[in-house]
Amino acid sequence: MDLALPATDPLAPETILAFAAELAEAARPIALAYFRTPLDIVTKADESPVTLADRAIEVRLRGLIEARFPDHGIFGEEMGVKPGATPGSGPVWVIDPIDGTKSFVTGLPLFGTLVAFLDGGVPVAGLIDMPALGERWTGVPGQARFGAEPARTSTCRSLSAARFFTTSPEGFTGADEARYRRLSAKTALRRFGGDCYAYGLLASGHCDLIAETGLQPYDYMALVPVIRAAGGVITDWSGEDLTLASDGRVLAAATPDLHAEALAILRA
Amino acid sequence: MDLALPATDPLAPETILAFAAELAEAARPIALAYFRTPLDIVTKADESPVTLADRAIEVRLRGLIEARFPDHGIFGEEMGVKPGATPGSGPVWVIDPIDGTKSFVTGLPLFGTLVAFLDGGVPVAGLIDMPALGERWTGVPGQARFGAEPARTSTCRSLSAARFFTTSPEGFTGADEARYRRLSAKTALRRFGGDCYAYGLLASGHCDLIAETGLQPYDYMALVPVIRAAGGVITDWSGEDLTLASDGRVLAAATPDLHAEALAILRA
Repeated sequence: MDLALPATDPLAPETILAFAAELAEAARPIALAYFRTPLDIVTKADESPVTLADRAIEVRLRGLIEARFPDHGIFGEEMGVKPGATPGSGPVWVIDPIDGTKSFVTGLPLFGTLVAFLDGGVPVAGLIDMPALGERWTGVPGQARFGAEPARTSTCRSLSAARFFTTSPEGFTGADEARYRRLSAKTALRRFGGDCYAYGLLASGHCDLIAETGLQPYDYMALVPVIRAAGGVITDWSGEDLTLASDGRVLAAATPDLHAEALAILRA
Repeated sequence: MDLALPATDPLAPETILAFAAELAEAARPIALAYFRTPLDIVTKADESPVTLADRAIEVRLRGLIEARFPDHGIFGEEMGVKPGATPGSGPVWVIDPIDGTKSFVTGLPLFGTLVAFLDGGVPVAGLIDMPALGERWTGVPGQARFGAEPARTSTCRSLSAARFFTTSPEGFTGADEARYRRLSAKTALRRFGGDCYAYGLLASGHCDLIAETGLQPYDYMALVPVIRAAGGVITDWSGEDLTLASDGRVLAAATPDLHAEALAILRA
């Protein structure tokens, strides 16, 4: 009789997702304790306000990761790369404690906590958690979920029918602004101010297209497995896979046809 | 012994608010039954999508108003003015079944139901209900509430510290666009896509300034009593009270000083 416990693979998708959910559960009460309370807003160079909640959550999540996976790398928005770790090699957790800080500081419940798990620089699991809405999307290859339900992108194949999101038209400068305007003008409906939530809505078929610039790896890495597993396409503005070295331009679409039509305009 | 029931004044603020809340309760399940389900989007001339939910709610609310207050006027977004009624005279209910239809059709929970009660064209009670968020603001003179709690605007007195909302920068044309840009550039933080929710956030002190154009009476009448009772100022872009004949330009601010600073820029 073998009394040994069954071996578990710490990198199995269900293990990763279960731990990512633990991180989200730990982040929620911290986020909600600070939400809609007076905050000192520190304006960073990129004008994205940073909050006390942002820092408190990252400290907590880094502690949990180091306790559970001491050999894994960590790359967080507030505190950077864990000493000795290289985000592009081995297992790395990429976290954004509060994505959508402008929402957070204006009382809008559209901010989220993002968790990505990278293996060799490739995002293999992603989680988008909305603390104030109690909603969560997860993605691993072959399985995207909204809560316990499967998530699936829409069937939209044409810009003329596409519901288009971008966080702010102010985010585009120079040639990017012209490209954005050409793209935006061809869509059926434009909506601003989604941050990570827009990608969740895209994964669930409620919007069809997102184009943004200026994103950091902790902003987009968690989105990739969710969008892909839901049937969508997510790349940079050249149609290349998003990596740690990407330039921060992100294009996400519900279908390959819609992505191709949008990409042709952004490249023109 | 007097067995007669106590006389009730049908126009007392508590009576009006209680009935407005009944209307909101009736609207919520209809809105939620349609929310995040596939919809046929009808594009109106102003590009605001209209939904089946919009119409179903207005039919229901008009029925409730006619049953309870058969002599009152009704002015709704979808079905206009009740035959024989004049919105500018006597008691009139002004309703917007779904404010924020772009949010509604993209899965964003930021749409609301608006109910205003006008006496002689003056809004004396207002209600902003957010069906998908379970949040509600109400206002009558001297009393603004968020749920059961008092609502109070922020103490922000300067544009340089103001968190600024507008539904979309695309809503401004011609000279208005230039005025909007001058104003926007002076604020601390800009956020798009709030619709009626932004006014609730302003009443609760989470944002400080809102400027919009192109609004209709059913879009703004319910906001006026909420903002005023919370301590804020809401006018058109000339600083005049909002009436049924206003031109659709709305400026709302947390404090008189902030309102005056914004108004000076919009008038310049």
